[in-house]
Amino acid sequence: MDRKAFVQAFLDQVWSDGDVDAVDRYVSGRYTIHHDPGDPWNGQTLTIDGFKDRLVKSRAAAPDQVFSVQSLVEEGGRIAVAWLWRGTHLGDLPGLPATGKPITMSGLTIYFFEDGGLSGHWQVADRLGIYQQITAAS
Amino acid sequence: MDRKAFVQAFLDQVWSDGDVDAVDRYVSGRYTIHHDPGDPWNGQTLTIDGFKDRLVKSRAAAPDQVFSVQSLVEEGGRIAVAWLWRGTHLGDLPGLPATGKPITMSGLTIYFFEDGGLSGHWQVADRLGIYQQITAAS
Repeated sequence: MDRKAFVQAFLDQVWSDGDVDAVDRYVSGRYTIHHDPGDPWNGQTLTIDGFKDRLVKSRAAAPDQVFSVQSLVEEGGRIAVAWLWRGTHLGDLPGLPATGKPITMSGLTIYFFEDGGLSGHWQVADRLGIYQQITAAS
Repeated sequence: MDRKAFVQAFLDQVWSDGDVDAVDRYVSGRYTIHHDPGDPWNGQTLTIDGFKDRLVKSRAAAPDQVFSVQSLVEEGGRIAVAWLWRGTHLGDLPGLPATGKPITMSGLTIYFFEDGGLSGHWQVADRLGIYQQITAAS
């Protein structure tokens, strides 16, 4: 398996395009969110259906979102991904009702592989950047 | 060179212990901060002296800070590091005068190697977590 192409396709199809059915091709039976500050599912282990539910609810805040991969570092069953993200704030976030503003975010994720699919991640995103863009005077 | 041990020692001696002279052992002649939202030196290429200046000024906000490495992913001349950070808010941050509060932060960094030393990084830290801890009612 070309794991870099796999992660790139996962981000494109699942997160950027929002293809819920595609989750079956990329995610293992159990997916653990080891560390992801601010993610409502942080610390949980999800089934495939649980992952799909998280995908749909997470994408609702910016349905036109696009992940752009900047760098990939692979070793063993893990890949670190540096990414940039952009979208339009068309749905509510906790404490931040939809504003219609264009927003951008930076993040880094380590993905874990097991049984030929993704089994979890450790992630940090620059939430303060999003907060500042949304609350800035227009 | 065992690059994982090198990065671990760099974080321990330079960032956790604040040993300014140790910078000479770990940092290349030029160090580029490729991406680091909120870092005052973001986008700049520093000399060794410039790096030491950034170290001293950055550590002043929490002089007792400790980096704890959670995961390392190495490929070629790059290492991704997932880390946790804790310290005491004893110095001012932009817009956030010292409070004396204990604070914690999560982050991920990709370090780049060149000529036997560190030549730069791409980093994202959870700045919102710090902001929330400092501004929370005590």
